[in-house]
Amino acid sequence: MKAEIIAVGTELLLGQIVNTNAQYLSQKLASLGIDVYFQTVVGDNPGRLRQAIEIGRSRADLLVFTGGLGPTQDDLTKDVLADYLNLGLRLHEPSMAKIEQLFASRGLHMVESNRRQAMSIEGAEPLENTTGLAVGNGLTADGTLYLLLPGPPKEMKPMMDGAGENWLRSNLVDEQPLYSRILKFAGIGESNLEATLLDLIDGQVDPTLAPYAKEGEVAIRVSTKAGSEAEASVKIDAAVAMIKERAGDYLYAERDVPIEEEIIRLLRASRRKLASAESISGGLLAELITNVPGSSGEFLGGVVTYTNHMKHRLLSVPMSQLEGEGAPGAISESTAALMAERVRELAGADFGISLTGVAGPAESEGKPVGLVYFGLAERGKPTVVHTMNLSGGRTMIRIRAVKAALYRLWLSLRD
Amino acid sequence: MKAEIIAVGTELLLGQIVNTNAQYLSQKLASLGIDVYFQTVVGDNPGRLRQAIEIGRSRADLLVFTGGLGPTQDDLTKDVLADYLNLGLRLHEPSMAKIEQLFASRGLHMVESNRRQAMSIEGAEPLENTTGLAVGNGLTADGTLYLLLPGPPKEMKPMMDGAGENWLRSNLVDEQPLYSRILKFAGIGESNLEATLLDLIDGQVDPTLAPYAKEGEVAIRVSTKAGSEAEASVKIDAAVAMIKERAGDYLYAERDVPIEEEIIRLLRASRRKLASAESISGGLLAELITNVPGSSGEFLGGVVTYTNHMKHRLLSVPMSQLEGEGAPGAISESTAALMAERVRELAGADFGISLTGVAGPAESEGKPVGLVYFGLAERGKPTVVHTMNLSGGRTMIRIRAVKAALYRLWLSLRD
Repeated sequence: MKAEIIAVGTELLLGQIVNTNAQYLSQKLASLGIDVYFQTVVGDNPGRLRQAIEIGRSRADLLVFTGGLGPTQDDLTKDVLADYLNLGLRLHEPSMAKIEQLFASRGLHMVESNRRQAMSIEGAEPLENTTGLAVGNGLTADGTLYLLLPGPPKEMKPMMDGAGENWLRSNLVDEQPLYSRILKFAGIGESNLEATLLDLIDGQVDPTLAPYAKEGEVAIRVSTKAGSEAEASVKIDAAVAMIKERAGDYLYAERDVPIEEEIIRLLRASRRKLASAESISGGLLAELITNVPGSSGEFLGGVVTYTNHMKHRLLSVPMSQLEGEGAPGAISESTAALMAERVRELAGADFGISLTGVAGPAESEGKPVGLVYFGLAERGKPTVVHTMNLSGGRTMIRIRAVKAALYRLWLSLRD
Repeated sequence: MKAEIIAVGTELLLGQIVNTNAQYLSQKLASLGIDVYFQTVVGDNPGRLRQAIEIGRSRADLLVFTGGLGPTQDDLTKDVLADYLNLGLRLHEPSMAKIEQLFASRGLHMVESNRRQAMSIEGAEPLENTTGLAVGNGLTADGTLYLLLPGPPKEMKPMMDGAGENWLRSNLVDEQPLYSRILKFAGIGESNLEATLLDLIDGQVDPTLAPYAKEGEVAIRVSTKAGSEAEASVKIDAAVAMIKERAGDYLYAERDVPIEEEIIRLLRASRRKLASAESISGGLLAELITNVPGSSGEFLGGVVTYTNHMKHRLLSVPMSQLEGEGAPGAISESTAALMAERVRELAGADFGISLTGVAGPAESEGKPVGLVYFGLAERGKPTVVHTMNLSGGRTMIRIRAVKAALYRLWLSLRD
């Protein structure tokens, strides 16, 4: 079954609010095995709404509306759809009673316009609104299904999950639900990952493999329609096994989590603690890690030693190491190593990690923009320093340096 | 001018990501005086994308695409639009060179598919991607404007604000050019600011005032059509004067810069240095400040003292202050003050700032989620601590705490 989501509201077109309803409904419909081919947003305008209905009907079997069920003159969804289908509007007594009772209980005079929220399209099934006043509608006309839901998420979601889903299921020409698993990768770019898996991605019909980039991370969605979760898992496991053969070293999770969350999980599992010393990344590394809920158990803290003075003062890196004739300088393999080791000792952690380099705009210590050293000091093991040459603007270099560092850390935690 | 936003990506139709791009672009277009009548989301499917283009053309003068410019087989926007308009694709040499250089610098083999990101539609103006690889396009064909932007917000926003907006302005079919000035506010929420200025926002016809929120900041774009820059400035100055009367204390810049950039500017002008001590914000404060190019001159560094041990070890906050019967604890006014003072001394800075509080999910030290103390220690002045009670999830509380801290710091620098 093909569906289209039509969100009605000028505030969406003005960018005053984000259309989170479309995401919620898309996920919901996918879980019911219904394919969403289009999402449309249209304003509180009868002519354009009618146009959207016309187009939607021509390309979908199910139109899911959200918004435009409220009491104001702007709330037109029921009126316009009824008019388009040459159907009337009927007052839904139970909804009306509920509205009157609510106003009475608050000792308020009921504004007449509230009657609009109790109107139902002729022949439609009224869908109860458990968290608001506007009644929803489920309607079948000329072989097209119309589901009318309120706009406010706190009313839309309960109605969709309750009366809406029930009405949908009872009107579905039995479809198999879609099951998906997200695979998250690090240390490899989207295009390289796809090249590695190209024949699988193109060849795989069931399950399907869909790669996509998401905030500097790479993900692959493995999806299949199946009669049961168990049946789906068997098919998905087989596909994942093939992917692991090719790119197992980059696959850090089989669910949609950032790599820093996996790192915290691995640290917790092995009862180990982490501390960081940042120069080039200026706190970004610590910020990502501490953004993981509960990370305070594994991340002891860090320093942002932006100047040589601070590297010396906080981490007791010798000034002779940082400045003067023939000194390695702040941006060097040996300084990265010292920073990682000293912060590990200072915090009493099992892992100390460090980043020092040149983010630009200008070179520093005669070293080129994009040169970054990542230091990894582990209790009882020799310190390792990775050298990177990154490109991009100042911000991108900082992000790439941190992502690469997190990947290296994850690798050594995994092994 | 009538516009339609077309977001391309199956991940949107599956509800894996929210279409925040549509909101950003809607706000942007509104601020440029362009009316958005429809938003459409279509998957990575040539036939349906072509259909969306056809419908969009029939009802809009400007189609703004986001997504589908990447390297993978799924990224079809340029191919489908070029084919629809019977135009060819040309390799944009500078973009190709940039891609090759990137892979070379990382010592990686460039996968052939990356060439796709450097392709440009015949006759289109290539739009530089400052934060990614896929080149954008601005194209006029048969009286319709086509603006092609990348999907990842990290790439889309800078391109829209830069090359995209320039291309749009130069192609607006308007007798008079649109002049705009961005006003940036801090220390006040979007809805509060809007309420304060509501009559102005509604009443102002020329210049128009368009408020919009942007990464935790609030901005108002003041726009007017005028025959000359000078003529526009007179009108805009008058509107800005009215706004200043109402909200002058929150207006930190009359150009689109983050508040941390203003802070660095003010520090530089007064030859003063800054250091930070963070607990709740885990490095976010330092990260924002060090993201300002050249900030290393004014920001000496900071510490992320996530545990009491680190607060004691790095900042010599007495353990008796942090733990034990009747101790104020880590989340307290006095600890915030000590953290700010100690990091200022440690770094030899003029300002030391600190943040300690509860980001959640759970309460800490029996103190409620959202309770945050901001410490501000200035050389030769008594230390000030501001108490905040913030709402939202873990991430929002961290961001709001940092933004509020930056606002307080800006206030004391301005005076």
